[in-house]
Amino acid sequence: MEAIREGDRILFITEKGKRYLIEARRGRRFHSSEGYVDLGEVIGLPYGARVKTNTGSTWVAAKPLILDEVLNFPRVTQIVYPKDLGYVILMSGVRCGSRVVEGGTGAGVLTTMLAYYVAPGGRVYSYDVEEDHLENAARQLERVGLREFVELKHGDLTRRIDERDVDAVILDIPTPWLAVANARMALRDGGVLVSLSPTIEQVVETVETLRDEGFADISCVEILLRNLRVRRGMTRPEHLMHAHTVYIVTARKAYKLGAAADETFKA
Amino acid sequence: MEAIREGDRILFITEKGKRYLIEARRGRRFHSSEGYVDLGEVIGLPYGARVKTNTGSTWVAAKPLILDEVLNFPRVTQIVYPKDLGYVILMSGVRCGSRVVEGGTGAGVLTTMLAYYVAPGGRVYSYDVEEDHLENAARQLERVGLREFVELKHGDLTRRIDERDVDAVILDIPTPWLAVANARMALRDGGVLVSLSPTIEQVVETVETLRDEGFADISCVEILLRNLRVRRGMTRPEHLMHAHTVYIVTARKAYKLGAAADETFKA
Amino acid sequence: MEAIREGDRILFITEKGKRYLIEARRGRRFHSSEGYVDLGEVIGLPYGARVKTNTGSTWVAAKPLILDEVLNFPRVTQIVYPKDLGYVILMSGVRCGSRVVEGGTGAGVLTTMLAYYVAPGGRVYSYDVEEDHLENAARQLERVGLREFVELKHGDLTRRIDERDVDAVILDIPTPWLAVANARMALRDGGVLVSLSPTIEQVVETVETLRDEGFADISCVEILLRNLRVRRGMTRPEHLMHAHTVYIVTARKAYKLGAAADETFKA
Amino acid sequence: MEAIREGDRILFITEKGKRYLIEARRGRRFHSSEGYVDLGEVIGLPYGARVKTNTGSTWVAAKPLILDEVLNFPRVTQIVYPKDLGYVILMSGVRCGSRVVEGGTGAGVLTTMLAYYVAPGGRVYSYDVEEDHLENAARQLERVGLREFVELKHGDLTRRIDERDVDAVILDIPTPWLAVANARMALRDGGVLVSLSPTIEQVVETVETLRDEGFADISCVEILLRNLRVRRGMTRPEHLMHAHTVYIVTARKAYKLGAAADETFKA
Repeated sequence: MEAIREGDRILFITEKGKRYLIEARRGRRFHSSEGYVDLGEVIGLPYGARVKTNTGSTWVAAKPLILDEVLNFPRVTQIVYPKDLGYVILMSGVRCGSRVVEGGTGAGVLTTMLAYYVAPGGRVYSYDVEEDHLENAARQLERVGLREFVELKHGDLTRRIDERDVDAVILDIPTPWLAVANARMALRDGGVLVSLSPTIEQVVETVETLRDEGFADISCVEILLRNLRVRRGMTRPEHLMHAHTVYIVTARKAYKLGAAADETFKA
Repeated sequence: MEAIREGDRILFITEKGKRYLIEARRGRRFHSSEGYVDLGEVIGLPYGARVKTNTGSTWVAAKPLILDEVLNFPRVTQIVYPKDLGYVILMSGVRCGSRVVEGGTGAGVLTTMLAYYVAPGGRVYSYDVEEDHLENAARQLERVGLREFVELKHGDLTRRIDERDVDAVILDIPTPWLAVANARMALRDGGVLVSLSPTIEQVVETVETLRDEGFADISCVEILLRNLRVRRGMTRPEHLMHAHTVYIVTARKAYKLGAAADETFKA
Repeated sequence: MEAIREGDRILFITEKGKRYLIEARRGRRFHSSEGYVDLGEVIGLPYGARVKTNTGSTWVAAKPLILDEVLNFPRVTQIVYPKDLGYVILMSGVRCGSRVVEGGTGAGVLTTMLAYYVAPGGRVYSYDVEEDHLENAARQLERVGLREFVELKHGDLTRRIDERDVDAVILDIPTPWLAVANARMALRDGGVLVSLSPTIEQVVETVETLRDEGFADISCVEILLRNLRVRRGMTRPEHLMHAHTVYIVTARKAYKLGAAADETFKA
Repeated sequence: MEAIREGDRILFITEKGKRYLIEARRGRRFHSSEGYVDLGEVIGLPYGARVKTNTGSTWVAAKPLILDEVLNFPRVTQIVYPKDLGYVILMSGVRCGSRVVEGGTGAGVLTTMLAYYVAPGGRVYSYDVEEDHLENAARQLERVGLREFVELKHGDLTRRIDERDVDAVILDIPTPWLAVANARMALRDGGVLVSLSPTIEQVVETVETLRDEGFADISCVEILLRNLRVRRGMTRPEHLMHAHTVYIVTARKAYKLGAAADETFKA
């Protein structure tokens, strides 16, 4: 059993399904529309314990996963959603030890997830043109204990990428096509580019540029996630869903026919 | 630049989009409906080089990602698809150092992906009732260099799970509801259960059992992936898609109200 | 040109996309969050004219289609949505002259659409167990000029269907499987049954009962409609969509092997 | 009971779900991979009777609906699918008595469905630039008894639409945006335009042109239909589905602000 200690972060999941990320602190109360809990009371309980609010609502004191943390980040920009995060992680091949260039940092959601997967042996180089975003991301990474695996860089991927031989470049910027040539130079042979864009026109520009730059295995997908309400005798999909977040373009660095030798020589 | 060497595995992606996983070997030819290539010719080229077959088709000699490898495994059972794999990895919280129980091993696709993410510090305990599946999985894991991170176990998750305090239990078996109590005992506090099932009736049984066993944050989703054919002036979704593979149930280990202290004491 | 006259029904579509169904009346104003229009001002203008509110918002004075009318009905029950309505109409084969049994009447949306298609030569027999629903439907049908094509009946389709040799039976009730045998007796040879249900369990009961009763060509579908926001350079699907309304079961009356002669004889 | 007579059209639905549209003829056999049936044997049976082939496969002798007929037309062009047909019919408001302009005629599927709904009081004006398509459509309309409700016209909707005051214009042509101005002139006040296009770029051109021409209530949707395999204890969606057919653009004729009076005066 892993007991909750003073200062630990707790994810309360309420009876109505609301989620609150809070620190366990003696002498403090957390108030909600479903009543309050004394935050000292959960100390010593195992993660996953159920507690009752003063109004009788039953909450779970869960141990926050990294996904709970990032979904709780201040949304200084549009974030990447779980349905897309999983696919991006998978397709990029990123894992322990990987070196990844990413940008824009934005709210730091994707940055943090990448850091989670490259740790402890790898590194994320995350670019943003807004210093505010970098400062916020630094704070969030610090809080979740992943700060040391990320190099936050004030810069514009469409102008310059400093790194070389990285395993993946992940673009979440308004004009990804302008960063494709830089991404190509940054990627190792066999490296993967992933680009996220909300509109079709961005996707068309990006894909056509990837073709021009000789990338291979270019694909574009959208991912839809539908929740089911499962209850014996009353099972059905939920009524509403996200119809769209982003299109995900993936491609692999490749050489044009006959160009490999030359280009390699110059490099 | 990373040059292809004798014996390296190569993923050929043909002009028509077919994919072949082959070893680079001097003196061998690989024949296809789009002509042949001499497998010795690619040696010394960088990954990503383009080569021409004798009939003029241009192929890319890509470096296989782990995903390319698993999708090439012999399909001794139904496999887990990329759209679902990414979500399972993400929701399970599995990464470098994690300890995961999984089963059935089946074709070894999910087993191998889990091994890829837990390496080098973690471990996958993969159960199957069919010795054949375990032997096949052993061979595939060996080939992709992840054998050491997986303990392949001949056993039935609905009867017994040996491990304790694991970070996640991932079920891909016909009667997952019968393994829920065992999974609960195997999971650490805060641990995650993920269950994959093709039919609604399986999902209903599993979810209702998870409720009875006191699990929290129970959800059930299905994930749809749609490919876009992106070409300037002719962009549209592809004509066909997978309409269904599996429903994905996720839940977190939790305690019933007031039960935490007792249960913990006994444990 | 068809000019708007005093008393005509008008669908105002506002600049922000809101929709208001109102009668053109001299001396009356219609107030909204986007300002007001004088309802007399539109008299004499053609349908489709654009008018400005006092606050400068531009509205279209459209001629309401039948679909606009039904979507404006009081929602005394869950209604059938356009994405499903079109499919139901199509699969039922209902058109001018058809005789259709339908129930529950509910909010009268499907009833009215059926009346729209069977008029002037056909007839809808619409059953409901709630007198309130029937009275409301009568009012709505009256307003849109389709009252004469519908026989509103206080009754329960699971107990009795009075009609014989109808072209289609359309069920939108909680226990459609209990009405299958009655529907079979009501249908002409070659007639079609359509059943709408929100949950999977209802669908399973209904489909299994249809099989038992010898129906043929049984299918179950769900229809998803996704809106695109089309704007040059910024085109993308809308962010939210309905993930679920109802499953639509369709089947054709048929005879069991060898039973046709006997059954026919008795009939 | 409605008995099958010599010369009647029959839809055989086989045990494996195949569908064959054939005439009942004494002395003829119909051969398939599931055995043969004597076509004279079904004469005198009611529609919906089940018969056995010589190899023991049980078939249903169904009465073909109009939808069965159109899906059996020679596919001289890409056809409009049922999921889209229902929505087009619904949104266009077309029913008994409507006057509709449509084109291209193509395989005649949409033409025939429109004829089915406007009959007996209305009329479909269907244009195509290919005489072959018109001739084929004439044959198919003749066969299903709807020829008299359709005027097949050799012409190009992007050049000229002869009709005026029609209820709806339905475009299924490669460059619908070039027909928008003509469609506007052809439509009555309150009339509806529907346009079907497979690619995003076509949709963007069409929608932007509709905006320029003052159309109102412009929308663009795509419709996805998913089949469920319903069997107690084994219920799940089917594995494959159509991911894309066409985008459906709808709009209503409207006037620009202040333009109604002038334009009307000129007309």
